[in-house]
Amino acid sequence: MAISSFHPPVRTLMGPGPSDVHPRILDALGRPTLGHLDPLFIGMMDETKTLLKYAFQTSNELTLPISAPGSAGMEACFVNLVEPGDKVLVCVNGVFGTRMIENVTRCGATAIRLDFPWGTAVDPVAVEAALKEHDDIKVLAFVHAETSTGALSDAQALCGLAKKYQVLSIVDAVTSMGGVPLLVDEWQADAVYSGSQKCLSCTPGLSPVTFSDAAVAVIKARKHPVQSWFLDMNLILGYWGEGGKRAYHHTAPVNALYGLHESLVMLQEEGLENAWQRHAAMHTALAAGLESLGIQFVVPAGQRLPQLNTIYIPEGIDDAKTRQYLLANYDLEIGAGLGVLAGKVWRIGLMGYSARMENIILLLNALAAAMSEQGYSSDAASAIAAAEAAVD
Amino acid sequence: MAISSFHPPVRTLMGPGPSDVHPRILDALGRPTLGHLDPLFIGMMDETKTLLKYAFQTSNELTLPISAPGSAGMEACFVNLVEPGDKVLVCVNGVFGTRMIENVTRCGATAIRLDFPWGTAVDPVAVEAALKEHDDIKVLAFVHAETSTGALSDAQALCGLAKKYQVLSIVDAVTSMGGVPLLVDEWQADAVYSGSQKCLSCTPGLSPVTFSDAAVAVIKARKHPVQSWFLDMNLILGYWGEGGKRAYHHTAPVNALYGLHESLVMLQEEGLENAWQRHAAMHTALAAGLESLGIQFVVPAGQRLPQLNTIYIPEGIDDAKTRQYLLANYDLEIGAGLGVLAGKVWRIGLMGYSARMENIILLLNALAAAMSEQGYSSDAASAIAAAEAAVD
Repeated sequence: MAISSFHPPVRTLMGPGPSDVHPRILDALGRPTLGHLDPLFIGMMDETKTLLKYAFQTSNELTLPISAPGSAGMEACFVNLVEPGDKVLVCVNGVFGTRMIENVTRCGATAIRLDFPWGTAVDPVAVEAALKEHDDIKVLAFVHAETSTGALSDAQALCGLAKKYQVLSIVDAVTSMGGVPLLVDEWQADAVYSGSQKCLSCTPGLSPVTFSDAAVAVIKARKHPVQSWFLDMNLILGYWGEGGKRAYHHTAPVNALYGLHESLVMLQEEGLENAWQRHAAMHTALAAGLESLGIQFVVPAGQRLPQLNTIYIPEGIDDAKTRQYLLANYDLEIGAGLGVLAGKVWRIGLMGYSARMENIILLLNALAAAMSEQGYSSDAASAIAAAEAAVD
Repeated sequence: MAISSFHPPVRTLMGPGPSDVHPRILDALGRPTLGHLDPLFIGMMDETKTLLKYAFQTSNELTLPISAPGSAGMEACFVNLVEPGDKVLVCVNGVFGTRMIENVTRCGATAIRLDFPWGTAVDPVAVEAALKEHDDIKVLAFVHAETSTGALSDAQALCGLAKKYQVLSIVDAVTSMGGVPLLVDEWQADAVYSGSQKCLSCTPGLSPVTFSDAAVAVIKARKHPVQSWFLDMNLILGYWGEGGKRAYHHTAPVNALYGLHESLVMLQEEGLENAWQRHAAMHTALAAGLESLGIQFVVPAGQRLPQLNTIYIPEGIDDAKTRQYLLANYDLEIGAGLGVLAGKVWRIGLMGYSARMENIILLLNALAAAMSEQGYSSDAASAIAAAEAAVD
C-alpha cells in the first residue's frame, strides 16, 4: 500500500478561503523549528501580538492567535464569555450566524435568534428593537463579513448598540480583517475573532482573537469554569502573557506561527489603509468584468464585501461542471454556494494576495471559456477591458 | 515600530518536544496551498487516514488528525465520550494525568483520582482494585508515555482491565506513537490521541486520534450534545468521512497536514518496528553515556521511555544556567522539569529524527562542557565512547 510524498499543483485560489498564499509566507513555514519555550520563539510571539494589535486596530492586551482554525476562535469567544443560563442575541444572515447559535446552546445558554435574508447585511434597526424588547441579554453576536453570502454588516453601528444597551459584543471578523476597515478600539468591540487564511493570505489553521478589558473582566468574574480547557483564555493568557515567565499550556504550532508572523509583517509593510484600498479597487475591477459577462451579484450594492463576491450562476450553466472545468483547465478554484445558496451561486474571493489584477484577468478569461463551452455566448476580451478600465 | 521577517537559527531539539523536524517535512510545509475541498487535497486526507491507521496499528474507521495540538486531541476524547454525571477513573503519575482530571470536571463529570509516584509507571494492580471498588465507572483514562516524567505504563494491561470491567479506555499516546509499541487494535483501546511533534518529528499543531467502534457507538448514543462544536466527532467525521461528499466543518490546516503526511510516509518507509528499535538503541547509547558522566535516571529501569530520558540534575549544577549554556554555545535545547520535578531534573528527548547518534554525541559533549564550566569534573570523550560501545 506504499503511499508516497504529496506534491500538489499550483492552483490560483479565488474561493472563500484559503486564498493564495504569498511565496514569502510559504517560505517562512519551512524555517527551522524552535522549541516553543525558546527565548527567540517567545520574542516572535511578542512581535506577533504587536502586529495583531495593529491588524485589529486595538491596544487590547489580550490579543493573540488561537492555535486552531477560525471555528475554534469563534468557540473561544463564546465559551469564555457565555455561561449556562445566559441569553445571547444572535444575528443570522448566513451560515456563520447559525454556527454561533450552535455555540451558544452548547454553552448551556439561550440564543435569541434574529434572522435577516441571506445576502443582505444585518439591520441595526431590528437589532435595536430586539435589545429593547429583551432586557436580560448578556451578549450581542454577529458576523461582520459573512463568508457564505458576501454581505458586509455595519459593525460600528452594531457595536455601538451593544454599548448603548450595556451588552457585550462578539464579532466574527474572519473574512473582514485586512480586507475592509476593522477598528476594534474605535468601535468598542468586546470579543473579535478572525482567521489566518482569508485577507492575511496566510495558510489556514490559526485564529487571531482580541478581548476588550470589559470582556476580560467578565471572563475573570465567571461563576463556572470555562468548559473548554484548551480554549480557556485564563490559561492561554498565562502562556502568551507579556514578557516574564511563560506558563506551559499547550505546544504552540511553531512553524504555522512563522507563517502568520510573516503575513502580518507584510500587512504592516503595505499598510492597513492601502490593503483596504487594494481590495476595494480589485472588487471594482472584478465587478465591471462580471457585469460585462452579464453576471449578477447576489448582495445589493453598498452591502457587498470587496473580498468575497457572491454571484448568481447564469441560467443554463452547470454549477459543478463549471467549477471542475476551471480547476482542470486553469488550475483555478472558485467557491460553491453554501446552505440555502448551494447550487445557485458562486463565491469569488479576492482576498489578500488573491486580490490582484492578474487573478481577475485569469478568472474572467476562464469563466468566459467555461460559459462558451456550455453554449453561452461570452466575450472575455471585453470583460477584461472593462475590468482594466474600471481601475484606470 | 517596524517588525521584520523572523529568521530562526538552527537548533538541535532534545527536549520533550517539538523534536528535530526532518528537512523533508520542513520542505513539505511550504508546498503550494490547495483549497481544503480540492479533490487532490481530499485524496491526501484519505492517504493521511490510511497512514495514521498504520501508525496506530488499527483498522478503526474513525482515525484522523484533529486540527489543533495534542491538548485539543485530549479534549476531543473526553468531551465526546464523557457526559455530565459520568464517573471517570483517572490515573495520575505526572502532569498530563492532572490535565485529564481538568478535562473530566469541565465535562460536568466526576473524576476518581488514582495517584502514583511521579517517575513511576501506573500500577495495574491498583487500577484493578479501583475498578472493583467502584462499579459505576464509565471510562478509565491514563497516560501511556508520561512526557513530564519519562515513565512508560503498561497500556496493554490497562486496556485489558478496561475490557474486563467493561469500561471504556482513553489513552494518552502523545509521546508514545512511533517511539514504542502502540497496538490499538490488539490492546483493544477505545480512544487514543497523539501529537505530531514527538516521535513523528513533524511540526507541532496536529493531534492524531482514533476511536474504536465501541467508542463511536457511545458517541452516537449520547444524551447531551458534545459541549465543543469544534471537537464534536459527529461533525468532524462528516468532514473527514471516507470518499463521497465532504460536509464543510472547518477549514483544515492544509500546509500543516502536508507536513504530517510526509512524516507518516517516512514512518512507513522506515517501518514501525524499525523505528521502535532505533529509539530503543539510541536510549541505550544515551544511558551509557550519561552513566559515564555520573548522571542518574529518575525512572526505574524497565519503566523508562527510550524517547524521553528524565535525569537528576547533578548536585551543585545550576539548572537554568546549564540549559542557557547549551542553547547559547551549542544551539542545543533540553527540557526543564515540570510540576513537582521542576528544578530537580532535566528531560532529554530522543524523539523521531532527534533519535540519532549525532545528537547523542553533541549532547554528551555539550553537557560535559557545561558541567566542567561549573567546576564539575567530567570526561566527554569517555562518555561518548561508552555511548558508542553500547550500540556496537
